[in-house]
Amino acid sequence: MRRDALERRERIIKTACEVYRTYPHATVPLDEIAKSAGVGIATLYRNFPDRDSLIEACAKDMFQIVLNDQKTTLAELKEAADSAAAEEIWNRHINSLLELGLGTLIPAFAPEDLSELTEDLAQLRDLTAERTAEILAALRPHGLIAAEIQPLTFIIGLITVSRPPVPGLQKLDPGATRELVDIFLAGCAHGSNTLKERIAKQSDSDSLG
Amino acid sequence: MRRDALERRERIIKTACEVYRTYPHATVPLDEIAKSAGVGIATLYRNFPDRDSLIEACAKDMFQIVLNDQKTTLAELKEAADSAAAEEIWNRHINSLLELGLGTLIPAFAPEDLSELTEDLAQLRDLTAERTAEILAALRPHGLIAAEIQPLTFIIGLITVSRPPVPGLQKLDPGATRELVDIFLAGCAHGSNTLKERIAKQSDSDSLG
Repeated sequence: MRRDALERRERIIKTACEVYRTYPHATVPLDEIAKSAGVGIATLYRNFPDRDSLIEACAKDMFQIVLNDQKTTLAELKEAADSAAAEEIWNRHINSLLELGLGTLIPAFAPEDLSELTEDLAQLRDLTAERTAEILAALRPHGLIAAEIQPLTFIIGLITVSRPPVPGLQKLDPGATRELVDIFLAGCAHGSNTLKERIAKQSDSDSLG
Repeated sequence: MRRDALERRERIIKTACEVYRTYPHATVPLDEIAKSAGVGIATLYRNFPDRDSLIEACAKDMFQIVLNDQKTTLAELKEAADSAAAEEIWNRHINSLLELGLGTLIPAFAPEDLSELTEDLAQLRDLTAERTAEILAALRPHGLIAAEIQPLTFIIGLITVSRPPVPGLQKLDPGATRELVDIFLAGCAHGSNTLKERIAKQSDSDSLG
């Protein structure tokens, strides 16, 4: 693909992601996305024959950004002088994920049945999950993630607390999402006895069953 | 109203709440609700001329249940022998709210703009918020709610973590909601320095502004 064609394609993807981040509850028409990206609708359709292919490209773009940030975070955590430094790295990483709009984009992009993910996306998702597990493991010795916090629970939790708020509630307290992330991270750091007991009971019944 | 008429009305409300809890993402037709409640559609319309009036009755019913449970919880907390007893009372109260489906019903019932709430509902909401503040105050000496956790943040948080999960994610981990509630409560108990700093900065800029 020629360089200007690649740039146009990239611009469409970035614009579409921005649109999904800004209007989480709406289905914005493709011609509006083309217009915001400064390309003709024909150019958009040449790159993305339908909405699904545009969403797939957006999702790949999102995963690549997450994976890059995870790589940097892991490298930084290895060099962290002490737990205060590790906490700073951890907060910076979480802020990047929030700015990326993870809690908005994943619900917008995820199919109702995750087995419908394309092979490319399933691979990216698995790689992101593995890196998440590595990051949590690197944070445990610093007291930033309790032993009972599983990577999948962490991922689902971060997405859940940062999902677009119920519109009526958001007006009551526009800063609530960031505060809930703080509380969620504190819970992950300190851990929960109730959760520990729940996991213990679960594995008892698994081994009996 | 005659007793059997009252009972039918009550049955319609309870059935509608159950339907909203079970199918959070759907708009179930009113005649199906009538059928599930074992009444004719004419009886439903005689009680509730449109969906809004049915939703209002459901919301009032939900608030009454919450208020009753809050009253019991407050009385029990006053008698709590020690912090372990207080924690047990607190967990029971949270479990009642989760069983009621608070995280599903409030997003389903809340108008996009809360100033559109009817006067009755606004009063019930304010009373619920006051009682929440009293309960949190009673929990603080037991180390179950940190000083920086505001009642409104707590309410929004509990609703946010217990909202119907993103469908694709729920299949990955059906028990995730209960685990996230555990983590959220642990975060509320231990508190968050990041949140404390955020609140301090906020009140600085408020007093400067």
